[in-house]
Amino acid sequence: MFETAEVGSSLGKARFKKIAESLRIDLLKAQHDLASSGFSLVVLVGGVEGAGKTEFANLLLSWADAHFVETHALAEPSDEERERPPAWRFWRTLPARGRTALYLTSWYTRPIVERVFKRSGSAEFDQSLDRLIDFERMLTQENALVVKLWFHISKAEQARRFRKLEKDPDQRWRVTPVDWRFHKKYRRFEKICEHALMKTSTAEAPWQIVEATDRRWRNATAARLILEAVKKRLEDKSSAELAKQRKPDRPRPKPGNIIRKLDLSLKLSDKTFDRELEKLQGRLGLLAQRLRRDRRSLILAFEGSDAAGKGGAIRRITEAMDARLYRVDSVAAPTDEEKAHPYLWRFWRVLPRLGRVTLYDRSWYGRVLVERVEGFAAPSEWRRAYAEINAFEEQLSDSGTIVLKFWLAISADEQLRRFKDRQKTAYKQYKITAEDWRNREKWDAYQAAACEMIERTSTDHAPWVLVEAEDKKWARVKVLKAVVDRLSRELD
Amino acid sequence: MFETAEVGSSLGKARFKKIAESLRIDLLKAQHDLASSGFSLVVLVGGVEGAGKTEFANLLLSWADAHFVETHALAEPSDEERERPPAWRFWRTLPARGRTALYLTSWYTRPIVERVFKRSGSAEFDQSLDRLIDFERMLTQENALVVKLWFHISKAEQARRFRKLEKDPDQRWRVTPVDWRFHKKYRRFEKICEHALMKTSTAEAPWQIVEATDRRWRNATAARLILEAVKKRLEDKSSAELAKQRKPDRPRPKPGNIIRKLDLSLKLSDKTFDRELEKLQGRLGLLAQRLRRDRRSLILAFEGSDAAGKGGAIRRITEAMDARLYRVDSVAAPTDEEKAHPYLWRFWRVLPRLGRVTLYDRSWYGRVLVERVEGFAAPSEWRRAYAEINAFEEQLSDSGTIVLKFWLAISADEQLRRFKDRQKTAYKQYKITAEDWRNREKWDAYQAAACEMIERTSTDHAPWVLVEAEDKKWARVKVLKAVVDRLSRELD
Repeated sequence: MFETAEVGSSLGKARFKKIAESLRIDLLKAQHDLASSGFSLVVLVGGVEGAGKTEFANLLLSWADAHFVETHALAEPSDEERERPPAWRFWRTLPARGRTALYLTSWYTRPIVERVFKRSGSAEFDQSLDRLIDFERMLTQENALVVKLWFHISKAEQARRFRKLEKDPDQRWRVTPVDWRFHKKYRRFEKICEHALMKTSTAEAPWQIVEATDRRWRNATAARLILEAVKKRLEDKSSAELAKQRKPDRPRPKPGNIIRKLDLSLKLSDKTFDRELEKLQGRLGLLAQRLRRDRRSLILAFEGSDAAGKGGAIRRITEAMDARLYRVDSVAAPTDEEKAHPYLWRFWRVLPRLGRVTLYDRSWYGRVLVERVEGFAAPSEWRRAYAEINAFEEQLSDSGTIVLKFWLAISADEQLRRFKDRQKTAYKQYKITAEDWRNREKWDAYQAAACEMIERTSTDHAPWVLVEAEDKKWARVKVLKAVVDRLSRELD
Repeated sequence: MFETAEVGSSLGKARFKKIAESLRIDLLKAQHDLASSGFSLVVLVGGVEGAGKTEFANLLLSWADAHFVETHALAEPSDEERERPPAWRFWRTLPARGRTALYLTSWYTRPIVERVFKRSGSAEFDQSLDRLIDFERMLTQENALVVKLWFHISKAEQARRFRKLEKDPDQRWRVTPVDWRFHKKYRRFEKICEHALMKTSTAEAPWQIVEATDRRWRNATAARLILEAVKKRLEDKSSAELAKQRKPDRPRPKPGNIIRKLDLSLKLSDKTFDRELEKLQGRLGLLAQRLRRDRRSLILAFEGSDAAGKGGAIRRITEAMDARLYRVDSVAAPTDEEKAHPYLWRFWRVLPRLGRVTLYDRSWYGRVLVERVEGFAAPSEWRRAYAEINAFEEQLSDSGTIVLKFWLAISADEQLRRFKDRQKTAYKQYKITAEDWRNREKWDAYQAAACEMIERTSTDHAPWVLVEAEDKKWARVKVLKAVVDRLSRELD
């Protein structure tokens, strides 16, 4: 596929100057139009080493409004990054709406390098590319415009450039032994990149190959490609927005309702509860210390109707752990920075480091529960969320994070009793709002949405644990036991 | 001062249970009242090793609403933290309004440890304590409630606890050789802490010593102290708010106006400009690479009237640098997360790592310019900002960051010409708004505020460079030259 980028295209100085002048104005305008339309712009500049990625970035930043651009050329990950899934360094640097991020090394860099040096096999490579496709699709659907440029130069041209740099005392340091190692593997590198580019050139985010032998041609072409992508996206905007029209969805319960099949009469006596609690909390305390020493991280997500007892179950877990090891995250109204990013971003931000625990009191599953039922997300948005969430949890699990999810089930009658009780208890009153009463009216829809959620997202590495929560004692012990069992298995 | 905490206070089980019950309810309520009043709560739990800081944190988190609490027990700083001023790890973890942060190691830990092991002298120690006083005053004035608890046990009690832990196979790992090293230095540690506590017990944030020999006494006392501090702060609220009444301030120019003394007729010919620009950008490019290799960081702040040419001057600098090395930060309307933190937080967030550059197009000086003149900050707020900003820049400079600040000066007539020019030029129109025209009417007040700012914040380590900017070419070369000169001196 790279033959088309070795045809010798070039651009004269005068011609370039003229093109550059209008490109610059158009780019500035496009950048502002894009920002005011609520999009973010993600530009990946990949390609052959020595093809001038940085040179182009410098030019682009001098043309564009640099105030809204961040350039990322991630060398070695920091220790904070190493302690989370490999993609986290990209998640955290994604631009907010209205802003641009320019990646000179991107999520493609690592998979390609690992494959070139045979640290990964062909199937692994394809698997990682599949994930990137999913990731970019999600970004695109979450209002990012992803532009992928690939700068190509031939093997001979690469050698010529390296040698030229080496002759200049001021530039010599730019050429490293790694560069020459890559040069020796040029053919293999080319083959692997070709495969990657073919596979990941999707309708939403195709790769654009740029012939990079002539500097002016390269710069003008790359800038023009970005400009065209922005214009196209702005034109497509209305139809994209149409697909996102948000309306409440009130699913009907299906016959084989897995939640209704739970035996809500299960309960524990005070005595059994006290005994089990002490035993399980003791074991959990030790396991949490093991977790810390083994440098694994743990994520616990809690979902369930209002007043199902999520807070109480969480407290029974945190009581057993050292305050320095855990963090409880609860879903409040998103901040405007959170609203300016993909919906998973607010959870990415608080992912635990190695050896730490984050407990989510309500989680990313809000996307397919409250956002679906209340119409805060469009059908196209919550429908794709199942796959996005599975992909997210898979990455957590692959990076050694232990993920467990709990659905706490109570009956509608029990919820009513608890609501009334909360209204009577001084220090619980703040917990109950008019919204809670309104949500009760949509009980069936919420239950049906939960069933579908469990069906679509209960995986081997991140299973849902269904908890009969009509009796608080039973629920708390069951949750504790599930955590203890899972940790024992994982840490042994 | 610790004698009062060795008197043998204790609390019986039944009595504690009763107190705990009401404390828990009161704390929950206080936490919510504080949150709804827009305060954040910062609790430092310091004290003798083995006195039960973590145990208390665990209890407090089980009593409080853990959703709004983050616990910080920072062990080794991460590499991202090491590449910024030592205080940065605290700056980044400060709680937003409505939230609580519990620090089990705090900004006192490092100065005390360094002093105990004689890695710092007495003067250095006092200097660092003075800075902490300033820092806490700023937090308090920026709507944080700072509660400082000191858990005390005697030397004999400490030894007893360490030995008891060592006997328990499950707990043995908790006692480290470092603990015993501290124990041997108990008297010295005590003396140094006494000094620190005396010196940093301010009216806004006094230390509270808690006798920690009896666990129940310690827990009840510490929780009660937090509760009382919250209540007091809520009561004082109205008077504090009164002091913060915001009103515009329109200072009159003083006779010895340093900005008016600038010779705005200075200019460069096209030819000289081209020659100088090329020469200076070449040198800057090399110096920026040196900066990266020497792992120093650089901060450039630009202030000046609207249309004074900040953006143009910034571009002439960035053009010379690798896009991977710098970031341009511009002050837009603060996000709601930024509004929920001290005003410096938005700048702390984007501080450069070692070897990197951040260019601020408008900066923290907005506090004493636009916020003062327009009345977005109360007189008490912008008046204290000079000292706060000086302290901030001193910390940057101490950690090896090079700080340079530019004031770009133009005449009112020149501004008018540029405004009109912007309105005529297609790709510059977005740069000019109704607000720019309104600000022109307060020209004199802005100039006077700028003079006062320069007078109060031009320091040896972070000097203001006054730039005659009537001629853009002159201004750009002067800015470039100042950066090149400073870098040459610092990197040699």
